[in-house]
Amino acid sequence: MENSLLLIQSVLTIMDAKLLTVAMLAPMQEVAETAEAAKEVFMNASNVWMMVCAALVFIMNLGFASVEAGFSQTKNTVNILFKNAITPVIGILLYALCGFNLMYPGFGDVPGWFGFAGFGLSLPEGGNTAAYAAGYPYYTDFLFQAMFAATTATIVSGAVAERIKFSAYLIFTIFFVGVVYPICGSWQWGYGMVSSWGFHDFAGSTLVHSVGGWGALAGIILLGPRIGRFAGKGNPFPASNLAFATIGVFILWLGWFGFNGGSVLSSDPALTSLVLTNTTLGACAGAVGAFILATILLKTYDYGMVLNGILAGLVGITAGADVVSPMESIYIGFIAGILVVLAVQLLEKLKLDDVVGAVPVHLVCGVWGTLAVGIWGTDMSFIAQLKGVAVYGAAAFGASFILFAALKYTMGIRVSVEEETEGLDIHEHGVHAYTTSAVGNKG
Amino acid sequence: MENSLLLIQSVLTIMDAKLLTVAMLAPMQEVAETAEAAKEVFMNASNVWMMVCAALVFIMNLGFASVEAGFSQTKNTVNILFKNAITPVIGILLYALCGFNLMYPGFGDVPGWFGFAGFGLSLPEGGNTAAYAAGYPYYTDFLFQAMFAATTATIVSGAVAERIKFSAYLIFTIFFVGVVYPICGSWQWGYGMVSSWGFHDFAGSTLVHSVGGWGALAGIILLGPRIGRFAGKGNPFPASNLAFATIGVFILWLGWFGFNGGSVLSSDPALTSLVLTNTTLGACAGAVGAFILATILLKTYDYGMVLNGILAGLVGITAGADVVSPMESIYIGFIAGILVVLAVQLLEKLKLDDVVGAVPVHLVCGVWGTLAVGIWGTDMSFIAQLKGVAVYGAAAFGASFILFAALKYTMGIRVSVEEETEGLDIHEHGVHAYTTSAVGNKG
Amino acid sequence: MENSLLLIQSVLTIMDAKLLTVAMLAPMQEVAETAEAAKEVFMNASNVWMMVCAALVFIMNLGFASVEAGFSQTKNTVNILFKNAITPVIGILLYALCGFNLMYPGFGDVPGWFGFAGFGLSLPEGGNTAAYAAGYPYYTDFLFQAMFAATTATIVSGAVAERIKFSAYLIFTIFFVGVVYPICGSWQWGYGMVSSWGFHDFAGSTLVHSVGGWGALAGIILLGPRIGRFAGKGNPFPASNLAFATIGVFILWLGWFGFNGGSVLSSDPALTSLVLTNTTLGACAGAVGAFILATILLKTYDYGMVLNGILAGLVGITAGADVVSPMESIYIGFIAGILVVLAVQLLEKLKLDDVVGAVPVHLVCGVWGTLAVGIWGTDMSFIAQLKGVAVYGAAAFGASFILFAALKYTMGIRVSVEEETEGLDIHEHGVHAYTTSAVGNKG
Repeated sequence: MENSLLLIQSVLTIMDAKLLTVAMLAPMQEVAETAEAAKEVFMNASNVWMMVCAALVFIMNLGFASVEAGFSQTKNTVNILFKNAITPVIGILLYALCGFNLMYPGFGDVPGWFGFAGFGLSLPEGGNTAAYAAGYPYYTDFLFQAMFAATTATIVSGAVAERIKFSAYLIFTIFFVGVVYPICGSWQWGYGMVSSWGFHDFAGSTLVHSVGGWGALAGIILLGPRIGRFAGKGNPFPASNLAFATIGVFILWLGWFGFNGGSVLSSDPALTSLVLTNTTLGACAGAVGAFILATILLKTYDYGMVLNGILAGLVGITAGADVVSPMESIYIGFIAGILVVLAVQLLEKLKLDDVVGAVPVHLVCGVWGTLAVGIWGTDMSFIAQLKGVAVYGAAAFGASFILFAALKYTMGIRVSVEEETEGLDIHEHGVHAYTTSAVGNKG
Repeated sequence: MENSLLLIQSVLTIMDAKLLTVAMLAPMQEVAETAEAAKEVFMNASNVWMMVCAALVFIMNLGFASVEAGFSQTKNTVNILFKNAITPVIGILLYALCGFNLMYPGFGDVPGWFGFAGFGLSLPEGGNTAAYAAGYPYYTDFLFQAMFAATTATIVSGAVAERIKFSAYLIFTIFFVGVVYPICGSWQWGYGMVSSWGFHDFAGSTLVHSVGGWGALAGIILLGPRIGRFAGKGNPFPASNLAFATIGVFILWLGWFGFNGGSVLSSDPALTSLVLTNTTLGACAGAVGAFILATILLKTYDYGMVLNGILAGLVGITAGADVVSPMESIYIGFIAGILVVLAVQLLEKLKLDDVVGAVPVHLVCGVWGTLAVGIWGTDMSFIAQLKGVAVYGAAAFGASFILFAALKYTMGIRVSVEEETEGLDIHEHGVHAYTTSAVGNKG
Repeated sequence: MENSLLLIQSVLTIMDAKLLTVAMLAPMQEVAETAEAAKEVFMNASNVWMMVCAALVFIMNLGFASVEAGFSQTKNTVNILFKNAITPVIGILLYALCGFNLMYPGFGDVPGWFGFAGFGLSLPEGGNTAAYAAGYPYYTDFLFQAMFAATTATIVSGAVAERIKFSAYLIFTIFFVGVVYPICGSWQWGYGMVSSWGFHDFAGSTLVHSVGGWGALAGIILLGPRIGRFAGKGNPFPASNLAFATIGVFILWLGWFGFNGGSVLSSDPALTSLVLTNTTLGACAGAVGAFILATILLKTYDYGMVLNGILAGLVGITAGADVVSPMESIYIGFIAGILVVLAVQLLEKLKLDDVVGAVPVHLVCGVWGTLAVGIWGTDMSFIAQLKGVAVYGAAAFGASFILFAALKYTMGIRVSVEEETEGLDIHEHGVHAYTTSAVGNKG
């Protein structure tokens, strides 16, 4: 009897359990679907961030265009704008053609110095999906990296402005952005040899900015200064439009949120928010550093120095924005601001004519930011940073010097005296940037 | 005895099962909540993307303003800026008042040519929630579509600049953006008649750009050229400020990431990333196409052509950015860049005075991009594309011609000779865009 | 026998149940992981939105710079640009140093008037994670709020332009953004005393715009008008560059998507999309209101008024964008557009010289927008709004007046007559914004 009761009880319990298990089948289906959806949604949020960042890096090209047009002379404005428009165009197309596959050749377990995954864009086996990377598909990766390539070449244009032949600039740019930048990039970001040394360059103080800066330095050495640039005391060619320079610097700062923020390669909230905070504080500290030193040295509130101080701070914080604290970002940016003022003075002494200050900003502060990672970055090696800086310096300066020299002794890289004096705009492009009537009104 | 043992064993198992099922109640609750959360989060990520894209399309208005101010004369700068500021204002308000409900009248199963869902914005039954669409709520839909409406009208303003009466322009704009654009749009995007033909226009090469371009063509035919425009050889009215034109083109390019990227109508990573890549490559190829042909034909590095080449590539890739490959995007953009140079020459021959090149860029390349979908788009019909182009051309050109003609023969559409000669700014607005002092400093 | 059969049946069922429960262990693990992932992904999407909004608010600094450079005279352009560049720099650094912890002192259950959580940034216990807030981590919160602080101080710079000493402006800014703004902010957004009254200020019509506007009013009262400003009839100092003013207004409008959109403090689709729609319609209606009234009063299509009408609508809708309907946003914006025209006239009558119209735009429309919440906002109290406006007015005007007065009677706040006449640029910065050559080409 007890057995029977127990049995009945058991059976009832079993029926409960059965009902429950059946009731669970639908939710279980939902679990599976939800898990899949969550993965997809992570991909979505992360990919949205990466696309926004690609757009922000893209608009840096307008920032460079505005800064360079603002700091150079009006008679060469069309020329510098043209270069800033055509450089990203060439850069992105070449990156699709060969750059992307030179930079990410799939070195795998044996890091090397050169690899090439073939011409053109080709989807990975799984297609343009989450199978490619957790946070974004293939085309987002290409787009974001292509925007980086475009900015690197643009750095050179500002330094060599106002006297370089348009055709020579174009040929240099094609090699620089199509070959030099992606091969150098592959050593670190493509898992090549330098990455095996423990070198850390988060978003490209070295890989982008110093590489561009070394190219700029090679260019201005081989070109020589503009006629009359060092004739008297001070700069006889002041910035033609500080409003454009301002627009440019603000747009570059904005773009840097994408440059550094997107280099997290996902929308990870902790890391992206730290990186953006560090980037912002670095920029601010750079402005303050340059402001203070320039006020002391030059006995005036020098606006150009403050603008370059902002850029200096941004370049400086780019290598380590992911591995330093906000306070350390302020140190790094402040010192970058100091360095940019000193480097401008040094170039003046060396009679090196850099129209927009590309070498002080991108080369000097790019190197500084990379070394600073060795000082403040968690678990970072100063020696590895130094080795990376040296290798990239040798490669980028060497390749650029050879390129510019080869052009100089074949087709020539410098415009005629007449063209330089009268302006590149009317000679190379047949127009002026601004018409007289554009400003001839009585206010 | 065996039975009893078995029974005891059974009971123990049952108790295990009971504990398990009880233990599962909490997780099951979590499953349900998680599933709900995942849906919400998908909505969040997708809606974030759509809102970012709406903001990007919005800033295209600044792009148009800068391009048009840059390419027109200084004495008419305030006028063209004013139009570019007031046009989106009018466009967005009218879209709220009637445009949105004209464009999405709910044709349903029987596609038609006209429908109207009533005046004003009215939330759907479920409210401003995911019930409206998987990827975004009602107000995001309105906002994104309203930004599109605003840009369409702006296309016209650049072509008819420097001689149209301000009041006539305002009245044209009200009808064009409040009635013509949304009704035409309803035929395809509102699930109207044209959408039933298999016509494909992803983001509006035809619905936005060619519609705007047809309006521009009607306007410049009825207005006639500016005084003296075709008096001699070449253009006597060069661009007054190529720096503004540059700013404008870069901002338009940036905005196009939202224009095309948002037309995916969700943050789907595969499609959005393909669309952005295609958009970018189309723009680059357009610049190269225009650069090469202009250099050959005009024997100079013509900067205006490169700027228009970028826009040509962008307009061209807009119809098919979702159904072609990156390589095909390069073809489409390159041919668009060729076409824009040829179309500028053709307008010159026809003595049609289009101040900023709106017809070559938006009409010619809009048509080209739409037809290109019929050539390269997967599963697309060239005939359907041709039919769509023809219907939209007839409707947009016809309506615009009637509108402009009605205004011409009533209130008049052209300013007086005196006003045109002295400038619209001082006559219509009582100010100059730039004061003398603004540029009278010694550098 | 039946018992035995039943028993066997039971055992079989039990074995089923056992298998099922075992089979469920893996999915249950997945449930837990999925739930965690969904939370993380919500955080990701929401944080992406907040970071995008922070970037948009940041670029408002360029908007202010362009508007102020456009509306002021060329001889003071470098000076106004310099202020607009250095103000966010100082603002952000001070917000890191003390502002953030003054504004969010953790009043808790007893709302107060002053609290301070200590110098510098310090991560909460849980680190930079979702433990901080559902939608974003600590550093995103800091960054977004820091950008708000930066804009507040910038509002003052435009009003007091063209005659304030650079050093006095810097000192005022340091106190205003480092102390006044965050303490005032703490009363409402830091859960202080005013927040306990039922006061509602969604994104800062009062806390940001009127606070900045009160500072501007105090400044222009104590500075006095520019020499010759009210000598004759009308404004002898017209805007020097309406193209820059246009760029500025569009960028501010764009930035407002982040200013208001980010104030949702999450990516909640329903609320963010409503807020963006309201913001856009408010801006449009402001433009129309100002356009209509200015056309009637001034008998010309006054462009400057339309630009300020857009800003007026934006400031007006900022307090209530989350609690009013789109139609009500149009009312609020339209009235703001009317008010800005009237306020400009009133300042003219009172001989108060506000170079860019900061007081009409930010103060008058900030107050209007706050009161409008009491009229149309769901469950809002007009009295509470009035009390909030009064308290913030007394505090912000009082503190600013004391600050400016203290500076005036110690170091002086006004430049010399010579400096004002010849321009601040050449005196304080040693350069001109534009070189002659920048505009001396023949078109």
